[in-house]
Amino acid sequence: MSGLHCELCADVRISACPQGAAKPYKDVINVSWGDPHRGGLKPLTFVRQVLAACFYPELLDSSKLPLDAKQRAEWLLERCEGSSVGCYTSTAGISDVVHRVSEFIRRRDGGVPSHPKNIFITCGSQWALTNILKILVDSEASPRAGVLVPAPGHSTTVWSVTGQGAVVVPYYLCEEEGWALKVEELQRALDSAEGVCKPVALYVINPGNPAGLVQSRESMEEVIRFASEKKLFLLADEVYQDYIYGEGSRFISYKKVVAEMGAPLSDSVQLASFHSASKGMMGECGLRGGYVELLNLDPAVMEYVYKIFSIGSCGSVSGQLALDIMSSPPQPGDSSYPLYEQTPVCTLVHNVKTASEVLNRLPGLSCQPGDGGAFLFPRVDIPPKAIQRAQEAGIEPDTFYCVKLLEEAGVLVSPGCDFTQKEGTHHIRLCTLVCSDVFEELLRRLSNFQTNFMKDFS
Amino acid sequence: MSGLHCELCADVRISACPQGAAKPYKDVINVSWGDPHRGGLKPLTFVRQVLAACFYPELLDSSKLPLDAKQRAEWLLERCEGSSVGCYTSTAGISDVVHRVSEFIRRRDGGVPSHPKNIFITCGSQWALTNILKILVDSEASPRAGVLVPAPGHSTTVWSVTGQGAVVVPYYLCEEEGWALKVEELQRALDSAEGVCKPVALYVINPGNPAGLVQSRESMEEVIRFASEKKLFLLADEVYQDYIYGEGSRFISYKKVVAEMGAPLSDSVQLASFHSASKGMMGECGLRGGYVELLNLDPAVMEYVYKIFSIGSCGSVSGQLALDIMSSPPQPGDSSYPLYEQTPVCTLVHNVKTASEVLNRLPGLSCQPGDGGAFLFPRVDIPPKAIQRAQEAGIEPDTFYCVKLLEEAGVLVSPGCDFTQKEGTHHIRLCTLVCSDVFEELLRRLSNFQTNFMKDFS
Repeated sequence: MSGLHCELCADVRISACPQGAAKPYKDVINVSWGDPHRGGLKPLTFVRQVLAACFYPELLDSSKLPLDAKQRAEWLLERCEGSSVGCYTSTAGISDVVHRVSEFIRRRDGGVPSHPKNIFITCGSQWALTNILKILVDSEASPRAGVLVPAPGHSTTVWSVTGQGAVVVPYYLCEEEGWALKVEELQRALDSAEGVCKPVALYVINPGNPAGLVQSRESMEEVIRFASEKKLFLLADEVYQDYIYGEGSRFISYKKVVAEMGAPLSDSVQLASFHSASKGMMGECGLRGGYVELLNLDPAVMEYVYKIFSIGSCGSVSGQLALDIMSSPPQPGDSSYPLYEQTPVCTLVHNVKTASEVLNRLPGLSCQPGDGGAFLFPRVDIPPKAIQRAQEAGIEPDTFYCVKLLEEAGVLVSPGCDFTQKEGTHHIRLCTLVCSDVFEELLRRLSNFQTNFMKDFS
Repeated sequence: MSGLHCELCADVRISACPQGAAKPYKDVINVSWGDPHRGGLKPLTFVRQVLAACFYPELLDSSKLPLDAKQRAEWLLERCEGSSVGCYTSTAGISDVVHRVSEFIRRRDGGVPSHPKNIFITCGSQWALTNILKILVDSEASPRAGVLVPAPGHSTTVWSVTGQGAVVVPYYLCEEEGWALKVEELQRALDSAEGVCKPVALYVINPGNPAGLVQSRESMEEVIRFASEKKLFLLADEVYQDYIYGEGSRFISYKKVVAEMGAPLSDSVQLASFHSASKGMMGECGLRGGYVELLNLDPAVMEYVYKIFSIGSCGSVSGQLALDIMSSPPQPGDSSYPLYEQTPVCTLVHNVKTASEVLNRLPGLSCQPGDGGAFLFPRVDIPPKAIQRAQEAGIEPDTFYCVKLLEEAGVLVSPGCDFTQKEGTHHIRLCTLVCSDVFEELLRRLSNFQTNFMKDFS
């Protein structure tokens, strides 16, 4: 792990920074990000070889690259305008890549049809979400539009919604039941919006972030029925779909469930499903490649969607190439196949299991194990004395905890207050997609710290 | 040039498509885009070598790459988190790259200070513009916010403005005087907004698109004074700054002029200046690398700017690497220096000179020569008979002209109606950054077509 510098502190919005004074640790373990390569996941060789050859086609003659990587690069270059990754592509992405993404979706969903015309590749799924919100939210409407958003949830989701002039309507996941999504709570949230805003959409993230919830089919069906009854557009963030590790858990897409519920739901529920090359086996966050697939939108609205996406010209070509490989990875028999198969899920299983055991044994800490995603969101019972100290410093109690954890143990996590949490509860978020030896060192540091923290402030 | 396919037609929004019937041309010359590599500009070898090595660091041992490319790649990889281009960067971009961009600006502007903290790298300058508009436009304000936008101007600018819920207030450039920007016309536009909206910003593009205007320092000073007096935020789109070819013309940035006008203007005029790796010598549109530099914004607003930009996580790393090379290109003595120096401007000079001579000799066509940028925007006097035919087809007269030009001569240009033009005038836009032999063939086809078109419809 690289050492901590101030800019990084700024990014997680922790005000203290361990400069100057000597510290009882050599380096900082930073698990505040969901960034697989930073956590130690190796870039996939095939992805990088294909990209290198696309950027510098002279390498197509090189013996440094295997045949299948060169063939893929040639195939992709033929599909770039002017045979250059430096050309704009169509607004929705390179046509044949969009087709392969739709084939990937169809295979993933056991044959449920997917139409390339409903898919837009963008510079990351978050940007796709912003564009879709732009379409859903009439910023001049009165009352204002509202979007149901999970709590805990990611702060960029909140900013995306408020940035469009819409109101965030939080619905709370049930921590005691492994952060379950309950329809009664969706109803409560909807009722709470009465007189404040007019909810137009329901955002779900499955698997979750920061809570490691993986929804069951039954739960998804309930959510879909609810969205249909209340005429809410379903925004399904499914970027963590490859990270499933809970026993008996499996990823099912909202698209598949909607389709399999049959008419009238399958013809009427409006859905946007988001995915990305930033997570999964390749974890290529820096390439900025994501996509959205849309379902049941009116053709006139689709024209407007096209216009909105065209403002940004097109997605990054490197991200598009990564999505092509994600959609059509090397197959058994291809020379790159053996090297392609990474197992981030093994790391996740190991880390999450160890963390649950260790954290739940510590005083003042409890941790839902989670079934998927790349994060844990343990609850911290912060003693009154520590809360008072935080108030004196003018910061949130869990920010105070995180600053102390950073200063005293060299562990950088995100405070729960960044993610919206039930009043009176405090949490920390930590990324679990980290080399297991580093993660174990992190747990050792956190354990010592927690024991001392509880002693110091009790 | 590649053959035309329907998707391309859709992108320039021309409804007819030459399918089926035999055509009197072998291929379509497409000059409807501002895409240097598509037009035949070769990717710069150094850029591609550095990118290839960053994506696949095993190439750092390769004899295929020159030493300076490998050294640059090593330097850049050291600055990527986890030494991987697959990691997220800071919201504003890789810190040292942002620093180099600011040094580039300082050198370009003859020493006028540039502060890295005011620079945000994004997935293209258009996205940066959208984000800045988000900050300027209160979508709930009554009367609505307005933005002064040139006519002719690019349609994505119009969509960016209207997409934020603001009103486009067009100001017309003076075609007869080489598309000059006149302050009287800015005043007229401002007056026209009375009772409609409250103008908050003035967007200028220098050098122009589609009109090849390059502003003089005097004209810029007038614009700056006007913006200051009327309390308008200045949005300066300067992505074509490397394409200057008019005799005696030179590019001066708005930032430099504002600074050199001294206090109180230099301390008060709020400015956003946009630039990009998509144009200039490298023309890497597909990498999606652009930046915005902000001037005189309140620190509290800058915090909000940071938040807005952080929604998209960060710019594409490939675009960031390209911006680093744009900012710090190989120097004399470096092994890659001789190969680095492309001269797109020679092509532009040749093409624009030839086009002005040829087009101005044709019946019904007139063309301002332009001093910069990558486009010509000739005026077409469409005969009444042709206008009637267009009306019968339910399309704009210049769209009708473009469809005929495509069908009969295999030349794809954009209709002027896509760019806002004075009522009763018609234009076409064509990209001049095209290999000169292709451009000459285009002029031959256009000449024959124009002669026949005038005969057929007179």
